[in-house]
Amino acid sequence: MTTPVAAIILAAGKGTRMKSDLHKVMHPIAGRPMLGHLLASVAELEPAKTVVVVGDKAEQVQPLVAAFGGVVAIQDPQHGTAHAVQQAQHALANFAGNVLILYGDVPFVGAQTMRRMLDRLEAGDRPAAVVLAFRPDDPAQYGRIVAAEDGTIAKMVEYKDASDAERAIGLCNSGLMAVRAADLWPLLARVGNDNAAGEYYLPDIVMIAAADGRASAAIEADAAEVTGINSRAELAAAEAAWQARRRADAMADGVSLIAPETVWFSFDTKLGRDVLVEPNVFFGPGVSVGDQVRIRAFSHIEGATIGAGAEIGPYARLRPGASIGAAAKVGNFVEIKKAVLGAGAKANHLSYIGDADVGAGANIGAGTITCNYDGFFKYRTEIGAGAFIGSNSALVAPVRIGPGAIVAAGSVVTADVTEDALAIARGKQVEKPGFALKFREIMAARKKSKPN
Amino acid sequence: MTTPVAAIILAAGKGTRMKSDLHKVMHPIAGRPMLGHLLASVAELEPAKTVVVVGDKAEQVQPLVAAFGGVVAIQDPQHGTAHAVQQAQHALANFAGNVLILYGDVPFVGAQTMRRMLDRLEAGDRPAAVVLAFRPDDPAQYGRIVAAEDGTIAKMVEYKDASDAERAIGLCNSGLMAVRAADLWPLLARVGNDNAAGEYYLPDIVMIAAADGRASAAIEADAAEVTGINSRAELAAAEAAWQARRRADAMADGVSLIAPETVWFSFDTKLGRDVLVEPNVFFGPGVSVGDQVRIRAFSHIEGATIGAGAEIGPYARLRPGASIGAAAKVGNFVEIKKAVLGAGAKANHLSYIGDADVGAGANIGAGTITCNYDGFFKYRTEIGAGAFIGSNSALVAPVRIGPGAIVAAGSVVTADVTEDALAIARGKQVEKPGFALKFREIMAARKKSKPN
Amino acid sequence: MTTPVAAIILAAGKGTRMKSDLHKVMHPIAGRPMLGHLLASVAELEPAKTVVVVGDKAEQVQPLVAAFGGVVAIQDPQHGTAHAVQQAQHALANFAGNVLILYGDVPFVGAQTMRRMLDRLEAGDRPAAVVLAFRPDDPAQYGRIVAAEDGTIAKMVEYKDASDAERAIGLCNSGLMAVRAADLWPLLARVGNDNAAGEYYLPDIVMIAAADGRASAAIEADAAEVTGINSRAELAAAEAAWQARRRADAMADGVSLIAPETVWFSFDTKLGRDVLVEPNVFFGPGVSVGDQVRIRAFSHIEGATIGAGAEIGPYARLRPGASIGAAAKVGNFVEIKKAVLGAGAKANHLSYIGDADVGAGANIGAGTITCNYDGFFKYRTEIGAGAFIGSNSALVAPVRIGPGAIVAAGSVVTADVTEDALAIARGKQVEKPGFALKFREIMAARKKSKPN
Repeated sequence: MTTPVAAIILAAGKGTRMKSDLHKVMHPIAGRPMLGHLLASVAELEPAKTVVVVGDKAEQVQPLVAAFGGVVAIQDPQHGTAHAVQQAQHALANFAGNVLILYGDVPFVGAQTMRRMLDRLEAGDRPAAVVLAFRPDDPAQYGRIVAAEDGTIAKMVEYKDASDAERAIGLCNSGLMAVRAADLWPLLARVGNDNAAGEYYLPDIVMIAAADGRASAAIEADAAEVTGINSRAELAAAEAAWQARRRADAMADGVSLIAPETVWFSFDTKLGRDVLVEPNVFFGPGVSVGDQVRIRAFSHIEGATIGAGAEIGPYARLRPGASIGAAAKVGNFVEIKKAVLGAGAKANHLSYIGDADVGAGANIGAGTITCNYDGFFKYRTEIGAGAFIGSNSALVAPVRIGPGAIVAAGSVVTADVTEDALAIARGKQVEKPGFALKFREIMAARKKSKPN
Repeated sequence: MTTPVAAIILAAGKGTRMKSDLHKVMHPIAGRPMLGHLLASVAELEPAKTVVVVGDKAEQVQPLVAAFGGVVAIQDPQHGTAHAVQQAQHALANFAGNVLILYGDVPFVGAQTMRRMLDRLEAGDRPAAVVLAFRPDDPAQYGRIVAAEDGTIAKMVEYKDASDAERAIGLCNSGLMAVRAADLWPLLARVGNDNAAGEYYLPDIVMIAAADGRASAAIEADAAEVTGINSRAELAAAEAAWQARRRADAMADGVSLIAPETVWFSFDTKLGRDVLVEPNVFFGPGVSVGDQVRIRAFSHIEGATIGAGAEIGPYARLRPGASIGAAAKVGNFVEIKKAVLGAGAKANHLSYIGDADVGAGANIGAGTITCNYDGFFKYRTEIGAGAFIGSNSALVAPVRIGPGAIVAAGSVVTADVTEDALAIARGKQVEKPGFALKFREIMAARKKSKPN
Repeated sequence: MTTPVAAIILAAGKGTRMKSDLHKVMHPIAGRPMLGHLLASVAELEPAKTVVVVGDKAEQVQPLVAAFGGVVAIQDPQHGTAHAVQQAQHALANFAGNVLILYGDVPFVGAQTMRRMLDRLEAGDRPAAVVLAFRPDDPAQYGRIVAAEDGTIAKMVEYKDASDAERAIGLCNSGLMAVRAADLWPLLARVGNDNAAGEYYLPDIVMIAAADGRASAAIEADAAEVTGINSRAELAAAEAAWQARRRADAMADGVSLIAPETVWFSFDTKLGRDVLVEPNVFFGPGVSVGDQVRIRAFSHIEGATIGAGAEIGPYARLRPGASIGAAAKVGNFVEIKKAVLGAGAKANHLSYIGDADVGAGANIGAGTITCNYDGFFKYRTEIGAGAFIGSNSALVAPVRIGPGAIVAAGSVVTADVTEDALAIARGKQVEKPGFALKFREIMAARKKSKPN
């Protein structure tokens, strides 16, 4: 495709049914705002320009759009979809190629479908516009497209204006379009608002071009691809559909999911071969998992890299910056944050390992805590290869445990420990014989007189 | 509605298919016994009297009934539904209004349907009884109602006695009825037991009244509303139906559920706007959640109040009496019980905070434990605003950490800490150089000779 | 059944679609390799001999087969199913009874169906072979069986060779067979490989016998029973079907599952009456649960015994060797491994109890850790009946806490504690007044100059 492409994404709807202070297109699916899914697909086309037209809450949308190299245009007040597209005209003033018109709340349209729209626009019969059509199970109130066998559009008609024969047509208008920039702006200028709502409707440009003797064309997409999201229930349904596809892909690629319906992936989760995932695992964004890894039930993993042969969970929480080495183990009730666990290292029980470098083969005992924060700064803990941290120890960072060193159980380590040394930092045990017996007598009596 | 109302709830069935020592109507749905759901709906009618007729295990049912201001009547021995209703006669001796007859194992009949039954009883044609009918997908063995267009009942017939034409009728008897007290007792007295089981059947009063020339009327309810629960599988299905409705309501009200099918609510869960709930969250009874709260995966919340903007979980357990302030954070593997967390306070990792008051902005380090129990009594821990509790500390209650105070990591605090002071309570660190090296040599040799 | 039985299980397929380094038949369903399910059903027939025919990865399969008293035969190279069965001939050289031919990736065929096949083989009309047939919802590309009303097989035809009339037949060949040993080997020797793949096909023996004037017979099985597993998606579907059956059985037996679809059982899970299981509980192999036990949400239980009336979870992890006494309690974020908890003992919060014996009624405080490992050996901790372990204690094994003894909160216990004594092992608390105030001033200034 040599003609340059620009994308206009309409996202100015109020999203009232979401009942949210968050802009509708910023609600996430698979850990990414729905607009992000669409922008990522648009990016595959390497567009010359991307303009997102927003009503209110522009400040919520702007950083994401900028991250994809796009710009935001504001539609205020809002006078319909044709009017919305016009708000992008200034940003596209010098653009002379083909324009894709998309919707921020229709996030699953793929790059391949967009290319099909653009290819159709470039075809020999040079349609004035290409409309993306679909055949919903229940066509309900959608606008209908009366089209010839070759997809050339004879008429587009709103449901409320359609005859019974037209309503019997299954082909519906998704709203998405491809139009040449050179055609788009003049056609938009001719759209009127002589309708009940007093709004300027984008689909009208098809009939205006037709009146000039220029036909438009429809091409079909799968209904799932152009499903719009208008409520939290529809958002949840979109999430479920996305997850179902991703789970099927994972299994086809050699991942075992004991209970696929209880594993949630993010948009960018990467999984190796022969990974086994037990029920109830949540993958947040930014996770990469090597081959032969076993992820046990109830694990929660975000922003983490897991080496081949590692075993994670159950109840392991890996937070951003966790890097788990090959054949390492992270067990139950263990949290790892901004920390490297070397190959074969183990942190199997009830630990917090934050801002730490743990060497290969080190053993972190149950209940170990890296004390990495003083209320103002975070400090790092270094644990050398082969070191052994006794259970219930507190490592007060910044601190360095040398390779091969041992920290005795229950120690509070505040000073560095040299290689191969033993560090002990705990109180001395004293015993008070018979104390417990007397204590129980006293307390039982007190309990009798004052139960709580 | 000015005529007083009484409710008789039949709950004397043996519930054999439940295979349980717990009375069938006490099995919970959404954290409340099924009888509790029904009593709550009945309470909306402000009944003059509520009588629950129970066979055995009355002692299990009695406290719940009393909590709703009702009384329990015993049916022993059990001779059918008409006989069961008669057991309520004594308790209703002085009652002269309308009587609703309900079933403890048909818990989802709503107050609105009950009112429709009572309104129909009061209608101009003065029916002798109002029968609640429904049209199940599979009418199976239900008794059929032969009714005129206006709902007047021509005949009620048990399935086994029905002709083919009668069996083809879809309108079935739910068993629920409304009858005037003045009619009910005389009609019941005339019911016979000349049938295979030798039992006295409540629906017979309709035909007895008809023989007197007094018509009864049927009104219809949705089948879902009158579904009975007879097995644990039906109990689970009722729970699933209840949860599905509640999840849809939550989403419609502005709550995001990433995976709605993995979030369980209780009958009284309250949720603010723009609450985000990640997968796998369990709400026990007594939870109230403010606006903009994020509840992360694998959280378990009961009897807790959560302020606006707070972040809970993943893996947070809030137990009864937890009160989480605005913008406070409760992180992974943290249990909060009978404790107040002030606004902006944080307990992010592996902690137990029980019987405590934590001031605004205080920071509770990883692994902190409030030692609140001595085997006899529970004691409180007070942590002042802005205090900083170093990681892996034990706070031995009763104890008070002053505002702005710091507890050094790994401390066991037994005495109060004054405002803005630092408390340290830990052993001194000593090092034994080279010890680990020698230890490994000795142990490796021992391991070789005695592997375990 | 007096004729001896041998089973040949074919498991030489490459399982390419699994994309796995694990042999296909070793992929688990309900915690047991799929081959294990089949071997367990075969074992009910008390076979004289079981031979599993494997291609590559025999070493993965061998131990499981041996555990069921079977032997492995190797098929290398692989020339079709008839050739595969021939590889078992050597192992069955002296066997003269009836032979069942099964498939390792068709794991859910029950012993009852196997017996039906063998009984049919012994019937008066002495069929040459008995073929297990089924009627799939979508017969797709399965081979068809043209059979008389009495099940006598007129013709077996591969889908690709079938006429339209034959393709219209719903009766399909599952591949499973029963044949007399005396017939099997001679028939196999006559199978040719004159087909597109150049392979020797087992079903051909039916037509070879027919050519000799010896009829074979088909009997039908439920399609679910003979479903084969060829991909991870089919593996997940088989797991789901198994779990759905097990959940229904559990509920029918008097177990309450609030959300049945979120509870995973293993092949050998045993559950008492009136057990209540909250959502999201995972049972690994080897679990036995007594009556009236409550298992709360997010629990993960493997190799554990739980006594009557105990309460487990939420977030409890019981690992192999955990034995929980009657009415004992294991609470949130607690891991129990190779440890006995006596009747009424409690470990309610954030603890690791490994290699330990805890006496009846003992109370393990929050954050208690048994330090059971020194990097080489594991050591045991003994806690006497009625002992009270203060919160955040570390018990350095081998160590013994006497009955009725008290360990003060925050102690590191390295020496035995005598009966009814109090042990304290912690640092002395010192206070530095005003330190926190100065610290904050210094750090706030530093933060201003060097924010991180």
